[in-house]
Amino acid sequence: MIASDCQPRYSVWTNVHLAPEDQQRISRSIHPHRLIPAASLEPTNLTAGASDPACLTADIAFGQPAVTDVIASRCLRWVHLTSAGYTRYDREEVRAALGQRGGMMTNSSSVYADPCAQHVLAFMLAHNRRLPSAIDAQRSGGDWAYPALRPTARVLSGQSVLLVGFGAIGRRLADLLAPFGAAILAVRRHPTGTEPVPTVSVDRLNASLPQADHVVNLLPSAAGTEKMFDAGRFALMHPKAAFYNVGRGDTVDQDALLEALTCGRLAAAYLDVTSPEPLPRNHPLWNAPNCVITPHIAGGVQDEPQRLVDHFLANFARFVAGEPLHDRII
Amino acid sequence: MIASDCQPRYSVWTNVHLAPEDQQRISRSIHPHRLIPAASLEPTNLTAGASDPACLTADIAFGQPAVTDVIASRCLRWVHLTSAGYTRYDREEVRAALGQRGGMMTNSSSVYADPCAQHVLAFMLAHNRRLPSAIDAQRSGGDWAYPALRPTARVLSGQSVLLVGFGAIGRRLADLLAPFGAAILAVRRHPTGTEPVPTVSVDRLNASLPQADHVVNLLPSAAGTEKMFDAGRFALMHPKAAFYNVGRGDTVDQDALLEALTCGRLAAAYLDVTSPEPLPRNHPLWNAPNCVITPHIAGGVQDEPQRLVDHFLANFARFVAGEPLHDRII
Repeated sequence: MIASDCQPRYSVWTNVHLAPEDQQRISRSIHPHRLIPAASLEPTNLTAGASDPACLTADIAFGQPAVTDVIASRCLRWVHLTSAGYTRYDREEVRAALGQRGGMMTNSSSVYADPCAQHVLAFMLAHNRRLPSAIDAQRSGGDWAYPALRPTARVLSGQSVLLVGFGAIGRRLADLLAPFGAAILAVRRHPTGTEPVPTVSVDRLNASLPQADHVVNLLPSAAGTEKMFDAGRFALMHPKAAFYNVGRGDTVDQDALLEALTCGRLAAAYLDVTSPEPLPRNHPLWNAPNCVITPHIAGGVQDEPQRLVDHFLANFARFVAGEPLHDRII
Repeated sequence: MIASDCQPRYSVWTNVHLAPEDQQRISRSIHPHRLIPAASLEPTNLTAGASDPACLTADIAFGQPAVTDVIASRCLRWVHLTSAGYTRYDREEVRAALGQRGGMMTNSSSVYADPCAQHVLAFMLAHNRRLPSAIDAQRSGGDWAYPALRPTARVLSGQSVLLVGFGAIGRRLADLLAPFGAAILAVRRHPTGTEPVPTVSVDRLNASLPQADHVVNLLPSAAGTEKMFDAGRFALMHPKAAFYNVGRGDTVDQDALLEALTCGRLAAAYLDVTSPEPLPRNHPLWNAPNCVITPHIAGGVQDEPQRLVDHFLANFARFVAGEPLHDRII
């Protein structure tokens, strides 16, 4: 990418823990703009980065900058997060600080939509095909559990799937579900009418819960979603329904979920996110009946760092060209 | 269905273990033709039925008639099996006996193609999303195995899938795989050129094995498929490949599979069929590394008896009308 002499030269601060070849690839790709690695690099994109003076003077931040730096900076014009979630940046002070200088924030939801959707479908098919029970029977010394499992195996075809929250993951999941012939219904805050599946407003959530075989929680952590799935909503679900969470742990009242599973008011739960994370070893959800927990891996994908870099570089080219950015959140 | 006076009245023998309402539904639907339940009904479609004098005088058999009855009968014009597999009927004497009177044999592969394809996909996604390891970590007392599992989670998008055997299950699986963007290659005895995915002849199997991330064995039990997957073929697979079997257990050299898994020459195996079945409790495959076994449940589906009856009745209508039957195998 060649900047003409009259173009500004941007400084791109990053605290992403990159392999040397990925860091070099960014430097090469953004030249003559400049990459400024942070003093402290972050091993995962789940934790907030430390405050870094270099971040305050950069034009662009790529990674997980400290929220205080984003607010304090007088230079940042664009923050590109390496996560899909952005709860800690979803604050009035951040919006105000970026807004003052026409700044923007983008996230990496495009990178994580496909793996998260495949993770949900892995959960749904595992549930239907009785894989967790088969693995338990196998681990119990080799129990050929044909009589228990065969008559209870299911196909998605003809079942109903309720998607609660409908963004990038929901769209990809709807694509993947298309050939199965399931009845899909999406619930979102503000239906646009252009969704690729039947979509209703969140005020129809309670009315939609009883019909669903699979209730898929894709909600972000945000004002208004905290403990959205509570005792009342679990009570509305069909006792044979399965509940899935690849959104954020705090959207679920875990005590109510535990109670619903223990009493058999809910057939199963598949959780990739919990509150807190890591879920403590002694937490009762680990041993709740028909509860499968994966440790926040739904976004995991081969070549994840390369995909994050590719996504950033594509957006960087758009930024330089003055084009609208992908995955803009502020 | 009303037969005019000049039409023959068929007698339909069955040894399917049906609920009274399903039996009544068949009787009503085929009237004025007659349903003759066998003296001994079969609880599963995996075992051969007992010989039954009533079978010998029936025009049509629905279920799993004794092979000796099919051979000895002078009346049977159509045998409709409740299974997809038909190894025990795949004999020259059966072909000759049916052939003498222009008789036909059909199976229920249409009923099982969708659940079997969904079972394979459940296996593939569970493998990619590390579900068996996550369940083991959970059962070990609640291990939040993020560092081990997150970087090794995969998406099907861009991976290569080799389908060995390409009939009804393979076609359905190719449909389900379409939105993932995986590279699918099918291998079959006699490619027709009309397959919906790139398909090569079985003489290209060995050349195709090294490239596959997922090797899916869909072969039936038949002359020429016994131990088709042997030490040589496991050695050809990529060490990071996963092997799946929802065909029949005897198509795999299980000692060679065990050795490949134990030595890490193969990353994982997902088996719904084994040899013998049930797999004995002390069989070493139960505890082989990265081996997941489900107890021949891939064909399991909600309303299985009703689906089998629906399929038979649809074929019965075609038989009476002289139209070509679905799922004809002889």
